[in-house]
Amino acid sequence: MTELCDLDAVALRRLIGRRAVSPVELLDSCLARIERVNPALNAITATCFERARREAEAAEHAVKAGEALGPLHGLPVGIKDLQETEGLRTTFGSKLFADHVPVRDERTVAAVRAAGAVVVGKTNVPEFGAGGNSTNPVYGATGNPFDPERTCGGSSGGSAAALATGMTPIATGSDTGGSLRLPAGFCGIVGHRPTPGLVPSERRQAGWAPISVLGPMGRTVADTALLFQAMVASDPRDPLSPPDGTPGGFFPLPEADLSDLRVAVSTDLGFAPVDSRIRETFGKAVARFRGAFGSVEEVDPPLDDADAIFDVLRALQFVAAHGKRTPEQKALLGPNIVANVEQGLAMSLSDVAEAQAAHTALYRRFLRFMDDYDLLICPTVAVPPFPHRQLTLSEIDGKPARTYFHWLALTYGLTLTAHPVISLPCGLDPTGTPFGIQLCGKRGGDRRLLALAAALEAHLAALPGLGRPLPDLEKLTR
Amino acid sequence: MTELCDLDAVALRRLIGRRAVSPVELLDSCLARIERVNPALNAITATCFERARREAEAAEHAVKAGEALGPLHGLPVGIKDLQETEGLRTTFGSKLFADHVPVRDERTVAAVRAAGAVVVGKTNVPEFGAGGNSTNPVYGATGNPFDPERTCGGSSGGSAAALATGMTPIATGSDTGGSLRLPAGFCGIVGHRPTPGLVPSERRQAGWAPISVLGPMGRTVADTALLFQAMVASDPRDPLSPPDGTPGGFFPLPEADLSDLRVAVSTDLGFAPVDSRIRETFGKAVARFRGAFGSVEEVDPPLDDADAIFDVLRALQFVAAHGKRTPEQKALLGPNIVANVEQGLAMSLSDVAEAQAAHTALYRRFLRFMDDYDLLICPTVAVPPFPHRQLTLSEIDGKPARTYFHWLALTYGLTLTAHPVISLPCGLDPTGTPFGIQLCGKRGGDRRLLALAAALEAHLAALPGLGRPLPDLEKLTR
Repeated sequence: MTELCDLDAVALRRLIGRRAVSPVELLDSCLARIERVNPALNAITATCFERARREAEAAEHAVKAGEALGPLHGLPVGIKDLQETEGLRTTFGSKLFADHVPVRDERTVAAVRAAGAVVVGKTNVPEFGAGGNSTNPVYGATGNPFDPERTCGGSSGGSAAALATGMTPIATGSDTGGSLRLPAGFCGIVGHRPTPGLVPSERRQAGWAPISVLGPMGRTVADTALLFQAMVASDPRDPLSPPDGTPGGFFPLPEADLSDLRVAVSTDLGFAPVDSRIRETFGKAVARFRGAFGSVEEVDPPLDDADAIFDVLRALQFVAAHGKRTPEQKALLGPNIVANVEQGLAMSLSDVAEAQAAHTALYRRFLRFMDDYDLLICPTVAVPPFPHRQLTLSEIDGKPARTYFHWLALTYGLTLTAHPVISLPCGLDPTGTPFGIQLCGKRGGDRRLLALAAALEAHLAALPGLGRPLPDLEKLTR
Repeated sequence: MTELCDLDAVALRRLIGRRAVSPVELLDSCLARIERVNPALNAITATCFERARREAEAAEHAVKAGEALGPLHGLPVGIKDLQETEGLRTTFGSKLFADHVPVRDERTVAAVRAAGAVVVGKTNVPEFGAGGNSTNPVYGATGNPFDPERTCGGSSGGSAAALATGMTPIATGSDTGGSLRLPAGFCGIVGHRPTPGLVPSERRQAGWAPISVLGPMGRTVADTALLFQAMVASDPRDPLSPPDGTPGGFFPLPEADLSDLRVAVSTDLGFAPVDSRIRETFGKAVARFRGAFGSVEEVDPPLDDADAIFDVLRALQFVAAHGKRTPEQKALLGPNIVANVEQGLAMSLSDVAEAQAAHTALYRRFLRFMDDYDLLICPTVAVPPFPHRQLTLSEIDGKPARTYFHWLALTYGLTLTAHPVISLPCGLDPTGTPFGIQLCGKRGGDRRLLALAAALEAHLAALPGLGRPLPDLEKLTR
């Protein structure tokens, strides 16, 4: 039984504009869904339902008064708990910030509000976003909507689980090693990792490092593009934000034709450990959708040294954020954070110099590789979701993992390319949880990538078992 | 007695287009000037006069045949010896590359050739561009056109000396800590440090580091803009190159009005050691030109921690380039390089993390500072040129220097802001060598900055003693 909260964001926004749906009615539907499902999943953490109701009432009033409406007018949104929200507890999943209530919205949140969205609450994350399992000492774990004992992925895990179950129609995320894509894959929704700088951040500590980005999540590509358009901007406080003009054209997306595309498919990007069940699922899916494209070539991109590069660049960020914590503060940090900081503190400037040069060389190699393809497609995650009680995976496909984030290699490998990447739902894996695929587009080609992803999404929806899987809410809330 | 080679590049290009000057005639004039002056200065090192003559003949033929002519058609150009030139020795000023003959032009050189320029030779540099004194173990020192025993500055020193003496009408350069600006200041010509990414580099080892840029030099702002327009491009191999469209509009420059500008002037940027003679020269110049602007405020930008940041970011580049040299190779490196590499090898990843975060914070502070000003103006160099026999300066204004590049603090301080900066000639210092001023513009505002610089250049030319000084070639070649 479909309720208002299950409709697409694009449809909802249209209905609101037409006065066919009231923002208050929609909010009530989302709040009812949160009340029903969230206890089983723990996706939404801090909430601001009263403020949301006041804002929804104001949104309804604006509609009735015939005012100009923003592109997200009246749409409830979940904000990832790594993003600062004025007056709403923002913990970063850390005991150090358990009681932190920001005095202002960070830029992205302000932009989403300015576009008319109604913030209903924060979505759960791993501590400081570290790793792909959204569990932390403040709020505990978020469950997978298809199996609440297993992980929903991360670090934008609460956003993904909330979207998959209709708690909000859109939600924000961010991505360093895969945090917009991995939970999208595990929960059966869409996450878009934009070209660095398109969604400007005024808070990124190392402004020129192209690793960490902010981005949108939705249940469909069009919904994701709708939110994306509201998040992009030109803002000089992000040094990677292009100085000239505001990027646009992401919504509505242009029609795209898949039939003349040259596509590269790779099961493991040539370097990532991948579980045999995922290999098999991906192979079968490719066999079924390859006919949509002009040509499909099985070929690995040149990412051989991605592990070594990512180790250093990631450590650099963790040391910048946590290297100077006092012993008292350190005692409150979890093992993933401590592991990253200790790894980083043992590294030299020379390690950084080498990693930055290798990163640049990898980027240039990948650029040449993509000269021959419109898209590169690979699985989003190397393994099916594991129980969230396990903080991470110690082995992958029967072999020991190098680091606690080694199982994210398929996503962090593409992070290093600085190309735009989107994760699309593509049926279920053999364990009954969603299977996702990553589509990587041309450099700077976010618009084109989103348009191609929307076309593939439509194609997959027509292939039985390859569309977006829906969780069983009855079973979840029994 | 003005010869063809003394004319502006813009005028020469116009005369060539009108068939009033032949490219061969112009080349001959430049070669005669090189023959006459270069022995006294050592600005041009490797040469390709025969190839240049063939190219000039072809250029002349193209004019006569009524072909479409590039924006630099028939203009002789000097290429900095840090830039790779096909078939022409490129030493980087290092014994390690004393016999290196590249098999292809690097992108910038190819772009300048494609625009119609005729490469006549390479211009001298410090070893691997390290420091501001263009002397190296392959070619020796380049002298200052106003006093050949003193330094011409660096690292684009040969380009600056060649321009000042009419050897070529345009020349290429590059800038990390001031290498486009410092020699422009010491030789009485113009050097523009562009916004990172505008002149894309396919060779920069750390692709996302916004410190090292390529750029143009000329005798006038208009000439510099003419060359700049030929150097800018959109090229994805440089990750800082904006993905959308090719930047343009740098030549011809729009007219600009200085009378409503808000200008900040700073003698030492609040942190740089500055010789008292330079302080005095700058103060007197400001007193004379301040009337051109709407308002002039004496205020220092917030660059207090620039020294510490630059030390680390610079060391990072040197370690990337030279950290893995064999002992045999190391034995061939000069003391500046060795000092930088050793400094860097003693640093940790933690030092880098701190410097990158501090750099980003400095950038954001400076951005806010520039909210209130159209231009920031300061001296280009902290000291008058010193004898080039001294590798560097061990003290500045009576105090010991922190590093061999401490006297470049006025330029590397502005490097860290990632804003565009141009150096303009502004009369002579008390020692009889040129005095230069830096103009720093708004973020990404290269076009506006160049237009304002052209307007100030015209204003200075009308103030006796504040225009571009000309070297005494008679005395130089006596």
